[in-house]
Amino acid sequence: MKVSLLVQCLFEFIGTFVLVLLGCGVVACVSLRKSKGEGAGWVVVTLAWGLAVMCGVLIAGPYTGAHLNPAVTLGLAAAGKFPWEYVLPYIVSQIAGGILGAVIVYVFYKDHFDATAEAETKLGVFATIPAIKNYRRNMICEIVGTFILVLVILFMGDKENSSEVGLGSVGALPVALLVVVIGMSLGGTTGYAINPARDLGPRIAHAILPIKGKGSSQWSYSWVPIVGPLLGGVLAALLYLLVKELM
Amino acid sequence: MKVSLLVQCLFEFIGTFVLVLLGCGVVACVSLRKSKGEGAGWVVVTLAWGLAVMCGVLIAGPYTGAHLNPAVTLGLAAAGKFPWEYVLPYIVSQIAGGILGAVIVYVFYKDHFDATAEAETKLGVFATIPAIKNYRRNMICEIVGTFILVLVILFMGDKENSSEVGLGSVGALPVALLVVVIGMSLGGTTGYAINPARDLGPRIAHAILPIKGKGSSQWSYSWVPIVGPLLGGVLAALLYLLVKELM
Amino acid sequence: MKVSLLVQCLFEFIGTFVLVLLGCGVVACVSLRKSKGEGAGWVVVTLAWGLAVMCGVLIAGPYTGAHLNPAVTLGLAAAGKFPWEYVLPYIVSQIAGGILGAVIVYVFYKDHFDATAEAETKLGVFATIPAIKNYRRNMICEIVGTFILVLVILFMGDKENSSEVGLGSVGALPVALLVVVIGMSLGGTTGYAINPARDLGPRIAHAILPIKGKGSSQWSYSWVPIVGPLLGGVLAALLYLLVKELM
Amino acid sequence: MKVSLLVQCLFEFIGTFVLVLLGCGVVACVSLRKSKGEGAGWVVVTLAWGLAVMCGVLIAGPYTGAHLNPAVTLGLAAAGKFPWEYVLPYIVSQIAGGILGAVIVYVFYKDHFDATAEAETKLGVFATIPAIKNYRRNMICEIVGTFILVLVILFMGDKENSSEVGLGSVGALPVALLVVVIGMSLGGTTGYAINPARDLGPRIAHAILPIKGKGSSQWSYSWVPIVGPLLGGVLAALLYLLVKELM
Repeated sequence: MKVSLLVQCLFEFIGTFVLVLLGCGVVACVSLRKSKGEGAGWVVVTLAWGLAVMCGVLIAGPYTGAHLNPAVTLGLAAAGKFPWEYVLPYIVSQIAGGILGAVIVYVFYKDHFDATAEAETKLGVFATIPAIKNYRRNMICEIVGTFILVLVILFMGDKENSSEVGLGSVGALPVALLVVVIGMSLGGTTGYAINPARDLGPRIAHAILPIKGKGSSQWSYSWVPIVGPLLGGVLAALLYLLVKELM
Repeated sequence: MKVSLLVQCLFEFIGTFVLVLLGCGVVACVSLRKSKGEGAGWVVVTLAWGLAVMCGVLIAGPYTGAHLNPAVTLGLAAAGKFPWEYVLPYIVSQIAGGILGAVIVYVFYKDHFDATAEAETKLGVFATIPAIKNYRRNMICEIVGTFILVLVILFMGDKENSSEVGLGSVGALPVALLVVVIGMSLGGTTGYAINPARDLGPRIAHAILPIKGKGSSQWSYSWVPIVGPLLGGVLAALLYLLVKELM
Repeated sequence: MKVSLLVQCLFEFIGTFVLVLLGCGVVACVSLRKSKGEGAGWVVVTLAWGLAVMCGVLIAGPYTGAHLNPAVTLGLAAAGKFPWEYVLPYIVSQIAGGILGAVIVYVFYKDHFDATAEAETKLGVFATIPAIKNYRRNMICEIVGTFILVLVILFMGDKENSSEVGLGSVGALPVALLVVVIGMSLGGTTGYAINPARDLGPRIAHAILPIKGKGSSQWSYSWVPIVGPLLGGVLAALLYLLVKELM
Repeated sequence: MKVSLLVQCLFEFIGTFVLVLLGCGVVACVSLRKSKGEGAGWVVVTLAWGLAVMCGVLIAGPYTGAHLNPAVTLGLAAAGKFPWEYVLPYIVSQIAGGILGAVIVYVFYKDHFDATAEAETKLGVFATIPAIKNYRRNMICEIVGTFILVLVILFMGDKENSSEVGLGSVGALPVALLVVVIGMSLGGTTGYAINPARDLGPRIAHAILPIKGKGSSQWSYSWVPIVGPLLGGVLAALLYLLVKELM
């Protein structure tokens, strides 16, 4: 459906809001004290993050292609499938949606944040924290994870030969399952941000919100889950173009 | 398919019956003593509740749009997609289906209810019990969870431009997965009623049935999983109408 | 596709063989000693049984409608959607496929059967054993589980107005997920046979095979997972016909 | 889409690369020390391997049918659905993709390999290791698992009456779920290679890479997950042809 840039930005905002609300929500659900899902573990975290993307795609898909992720927006632009002048407004909308989603997660789980002592568990609901801090390796991991995400999206969307491509045009379910498997397989090191809006937005929320005993927002690491995914998305676009050139 | 209001109510009744039988059934399966699924945990509870909705939708979808939930019925009416005069008969049928579903769960798991000592575990098979009792926060949680449910359903159903919309018209599988992720991500606080018929119906059954050592039906909390979902559904309809207005 | 009764029986045989090989296989995988899946639990058992049905349906669906289950065959005949004279050959083929599937599971997991001491764990790979033995209650459970299975299949297949109906005509994936949720929600008491061929076939194999330290095949219980599912399937057909009559 | 053999090989290479990166990746994620997914277990391993296949199919499907597996390539050739002269180039591309995928898994999880002491855990990320070493039984298991894989693929693809058949032509999701259930049900003994490129490629990578404290690559076992799957694929093709002959 053809809609104005403003409406597109509204849908990217709402879609990313839903994505982050459900995504950060599942981390709260399995890691905060006294939650009914406490300790449900990796299978629940990875399934729910994938389905969170599905929900965002179901809302925004018909109107924007449902990027919901600056790395997808940049990758599609680099592959010549999205206008460069829309890139910045899309990214700003995505980050804003991410902030709001994280704020609602805090309001939702407030009593459980209060019941949880560890500051890093609280930060973990909002932003990614690497299992082993090693900026160079962490960067490689975010690049590889996002590379796979954008590569599969580009080749999936290819069948349609449409000028506009995104998560929405390839079906919400395959994209959801793609995010599930990236989490299960490549999430073990950095916690798979693979989306700057998903990490930066909630980290800003964490910095602003009056969370009891919240500790550092770890800004020194924050650039890795921004730069890594953007590089990964562009690399996937380059490989995609190279393969197309060979055909 | 065009059918009379009476037949529509019959399908809402059967659909909600199947939904609650399978939904309350999984809680019995994982929480009652000596059950083969005892301790299977959050991943099984959330997957099965989503698939329980799928089964109800597969039955009632072609005839009623498969609301199976007063909050969906009210939200669709508020969005101008369902006639107001059908709201009450639909809701009554849904609650009746919920009562019968819960009664069959009791008959089914009777020996395991008898083998279980804790009264609150027994009530938990029927109705939701918040992890941390805080009426205002619990209300917010039920509002947010149902808001997401109805918002995604409204935007999903949108592609079809039909006057009648419901779970059935958007496909049983996406709706099932939507309920799965709402449970995984937003179920940690109140146990995600997000459906007054799913909570009130079984709570009535709990109050009536001669369950050994059953304890209180906790009626003092029962209004939260009724009012919260109805408010959430209406709020989602308002946002939906606002976005449509802007387009 | 129109094929002869002999070929139909061949497909029912192969389909049920694959169903039981993968279904009994997952029980072996999670319960026998030294298996890589040992202790993987209820979520794996219920998911795999559902997907086992999917595989059988993918093979037999286009040729027979993929009943793969005497209760489905009988229910469809009772609903007037399957010729009565084909019922017996179908059921015999299904049971034969179930026997072969269980034999292959034994050959496959032989070293792990030998590494497992408990006789009842070995029987549990083949046939269902109730958590609490109570013939009347166990019978009710098998009736209810199969009633839901056949009811959803009948209403799902309804959209097509075809004279031949079965699992295959309603899509392999919804049927798989239907079996998953019946397992998760209604499997806690008897282990959800809901299919006489799935229980009797492997029980015959257990009785015949030279399994080290195998113990009783528990024939005194064996009639419950035969009679219960057949009754449940017919009851579902009756409700289906009653609802159709009312429309 | 019709493309040259060279481009087909490129897609088999990229598809198998993605398959092995995500497949070996999940084993690293759940088994290496300090990974966020450590201990997530069998359900995550089997789901992710299935979805890894889905991702490979989504990329290569439209161009090659997405074999991604020498046993599938050989089985399709034996069934008369794939030209014999393409078999070798396809297999070489698949193994090369498998090697690269495993190398990237090592680079990705390097810090966690270093944090893990057990040499066999490290090898297990790359290649399959039987739970109970018994060449004859292990061989039977790999034959049976691959037989089911190729049999279902052949019958699924059958509906289309196309001359070219593969994973891609039958839909990425059913194939993914087929691999999930083979893992859950038949993975307990050998770890279900069911694909020589998935086992040999990463084993070569293990032999070459400078992994700290890596131990043996267990070449004495390596022929089982090559010969078994190839035999299983051919047997499935023979049964398929036999059934077609009878119709």
